[in-house]
Amino acid sequence: MARKIIVIGSGAAGMSAASSARNADPEAEITVFTEDTDVAYSPCMIPWVLEGKSDWDGMIMHTPEWYAKERNIKILTQTKVEHAVNDRAKDGTVTKNIVAGGKTYEYDSLILATGGKVFIPPIEGTDLPGVFVVRTVNDGKAIESYLKKSDKVVIAGAGVIGLELALSLVNIGKDVTVIEMMDQVIPRIADKDMADPMQAYLESKGVKFVMKAPVQAVKGNGKVESVESLGKSYPCDMVIFATGVRANTDIAKELGLDIGQLGALAVAPTLQCYRKGRLCPDIFACGDVIQCQSAVYSGPTMSQLGSSAVKEGRVAGANAAGQKSQFGPVMSPWVSVIGDKQIAGTGMSLGLASWYGVSTVTGKAAGLTRARYYPGAKEMTVKVIGDKNTHRIIGAQIIAGEDATGRIDWMTAAIASGATAEQFLVDAENAYCPPTSQVRDVVISAVEDLAKNLKQ
Amino acid sequence: MARKIIVIGSGAAGMSAASSARNADPEAEITVFTEDTDVAYSPCMIPWVLEGKSDWDGMIMHTPEWYAKERNIKILTQTKVEHAVNDRAKDGTVTKNIVAGGKTYEYDSLILATGGKVFIPPIEGTDLPGVFVVRTVNDGKAIESYLKKSDKVVIAGAGVIGLELALSLVNIGKDVTVIEMMDQVIPRIADKDMADPMQAYLESKGVKFVMKAPVQAVKGNGKVESVESLGKSYPCDMVIFATGVRANTDIAKELGLDIGQLGALAVAPTLQCYRKGRLCPDIFACGDVIQCQSAVYSGPTMSQLGSSAVKEGRVAGANAAGQKSQFGPVMSPWVSVIGDKQIAGTGMSLGLASWYGVSTVTGKAAGLTRARYYPGAKEMTVKVIGDKNTHRIIGAQIIAGEDATGRIDWMTAAIASGATAEQFLVDAENAYCPPTSQVRDVVISAVEDLAKNLKQ
Repeated sequence: MARKIIVIGSGAAGMSAASSARNADPEAEITVFTEDTDVAYSPCMIPWVLEGKSDWDGMIMHTPEWYAKERNIKILTQTKVEHAVNDRAKDGTVTKNIVAGGKTYEYDSLILATGGKVFIPPIEGTDLPGVFVVRTVNDGKAIESYLKKSDKVVIAGAGVIGLELALSLVNIGKDVTVIEMMDQVIPRIADKDMADPMQAYLESKGVKFVMKAPVQAVKGNGKVESVESLGKSYPCDMVIFATGVRANTDIAKELGLDIGQLGALAVAPTLQCYRKGRLCPDIFACGDVIQCQSAVYSGPTMSQLGSSAVKEGRVAGANAAGQKSQFGPVMSPWVSVIGDKQIAGTGMSLGLASWYGVSTVTGKAAGLTRARYYPGAKEMTVKVIGDKNTHRIIGAQIIAGEDATGRIDWMTAAIASGATAEQFLVDAENAYCPPTSQVRDVVISAVEDLAKNLKQ
Repeated sequence: MARKIIVIGSGAAGMSAASSARNADPEAEITVFTEDTDVAYSPCMIPWVLEGKSDWDGMIMHTPEWYAKERNIKILTQTKVEHAVNDRAKDGTVTKNIVAGGKTYEYDSLILATGGKVFIPPIEGTDLPGVFVVRTVNDGKAIESYLKKSDKVVIAGAGVIGLELALSLVNIGKDVTVIEMMDQVIPRIADKDMADPMQAYLESKGVKFVMKAPVQAVKGNGKVESVESLGKSYPCDMVIFATGVRANTDIAKELGLDIGQLGALAVAPTLQCYRKGRLCPDIFACGDVIQCQSAVYSGPTMSQLGSSAVKEGRVAGANAAGQKSQFGPVMSPWVSVIGDKQIAGTGMSLGLASWYGVSTVTGKAAGLTRARYYPGAKEMTVKVIGDKNTHRIIGAQIIAGEDATGRIDWMTAAIASGATAEQFLVDAENAYCPPTSQVRDVVISAVEDLAKNLKQ
């Protein structure tokens, strides 16, 4: 009999898992349940669609019809999973099913790709018309529609989505204020000295910032008219919460699955879930709902990135279909393109290193992305973070006018190999051609600075 | 007494060595001897200067006067070193000096950065006016001047310099024919299946190719009028030999230094030379004149790249000034930008792997440089080469419309870490943002294809 695989969630993780399960088992019955109307799109694209660089249809890779026809994967959209059961009674009877839209569906393997929920602070007024989040195509369309009658926009949260969105909206003529609780932009993953130049760049483009300020209330008479923070009122027509994502563990909790230290699902390298410390043979999880292991030092970390979701989905899907694939620990490289600037990072930031109790030393270098004598070279600053005791490189961050991505991928591989700053300097090589690089990359100069500082 | 350091050669290696020696020893007397008139420039830039994207002064980083003033390094330009001595007589008398311009200069440490000589085949007519090589600023200026009265140009050799030059000259309206002995362009470092699309691209831009054809004679009455190959005559006004570089070991041989299997200077990881199998305490070498060790498998390899020269120069210079720095084995990543295309590689090509006796399996994937739904994404093909027995990834090559460099640097670090194809798939992560990358990079798909092929 064909294996029944149920996937809950249709984001990057869920759809990768479904496709991967199909590759592993051509016969399986694969069904995806999602509350969304669309599947197979990258929410990271929303800021650029709002700016007009693409459109809503253009950012959707495949439709449910395409999945049905090309991959024999059934997708039930706008369908909330109400309950999930995975029980073995004392008499040995096994009950494995989910309930959705009033119907019961049995499964052999269950894949939880329930993603994250945008965190909205529990404050007054967040139910007013004019309050938005940025997560789905429908969120994006709702923002686009409301923007037509809005001039002043407040974005709550200065993470990468908040910043990308801020510049997009300024570029289409809106008056944008970002309100951030911490004292820096991109507070969760970038260090302040690398984030500050990005904030300055956005300010130069017209984005206003209110820092060290929580949004404490949304006010308005029937619709958003202002937000309040630390006793001040900021008039606005709409508020977009880009305040981060929390793992959506509702179904997981009903199944009694173990939650990790960071509030997300604990999983094995096979991406199987645990229940009371025991590995579940038939429940897998992937995407923003899980907690990962750090590739720098053993320990938990979150990796709520599209790239991680896709990679996890491939492993969870293959294993749900009977294979034995493995998901490794993560470095979580990230990059954000904001106007003419790119900011990127990998491994541990100073904040994460401190949370891990690692004593750090840093190195930094500034230079150009290409040969000085080739026209168009852009400025670049590279920061590397080392472990004071072992001299291992544990993190890197780059802010540059171009080509941060490849350099961060390079550093990701180097850091994952366990290189010390000193060994990196012996081993590191970079490809050189005047229009794309310097004969000795700024990345290497940054590590040289780190090695010098480690000596002291 | 101040340490006397003599550097022979003012290319990337020689000038790096001189600067590095200065950093290591602020008191040393450092003198650079060069036959060139200019120092501290990147010969890789010549094609773009000929095309008008920069000028001769613009491609020179620093003048001899700058070195004298800013770094207290004396440079004797247009000065050929005629002899070099490094003798220890039976009575213990040590003689260490060089002779240049009729004068004798003593040294404590000698750094050989004598570079390479462009190989010109021993055929008729290479002394005719209209025959050029591409090595120095003066070579470039001579070509520029002669181009004013030339329409038809033959370039002998389809390596990266030959190809970059070919497109530059087509772009300024010349009729360009490349004549290559092998059956593919970039024959020394790229595989044929990756090189062929670059040849096709250049053909689409108007460059003509004659393949599997050695240039056998240059003909002309008082100046170049044609070249001959395999019984055919190709009329032309000038011929540029871009036929590769041989280590310039003249001085090294006079010093009795050991030459390696590949015809270049054998050196220790400290970049000290050997004489009759013994390490010389006071002679160092760097740049195109030395033979390197491969970082993939122990064994000799050439790494005649500007990036390698700079790195070697830093080690040789520091050690000549009394430090103990180490030059590691090389992956030799390279990249060439030719019009709208980039071709890059790292580690072993199929040719080099075969020379090493490694049985290979390959993987390949095509895709886009950025998210499909972000405007401007370019096509990209990635090839990876694996060792059939160990499953280690041993090489990678990319041809792409943009951003090959960072990906090759990434693969360089991954290959150097010794990763198998299977382990790479567990570990590899790439930073994602729609304007710069795909959520799962084509590099990873190529390794997945390799892993699949290794299984068979």
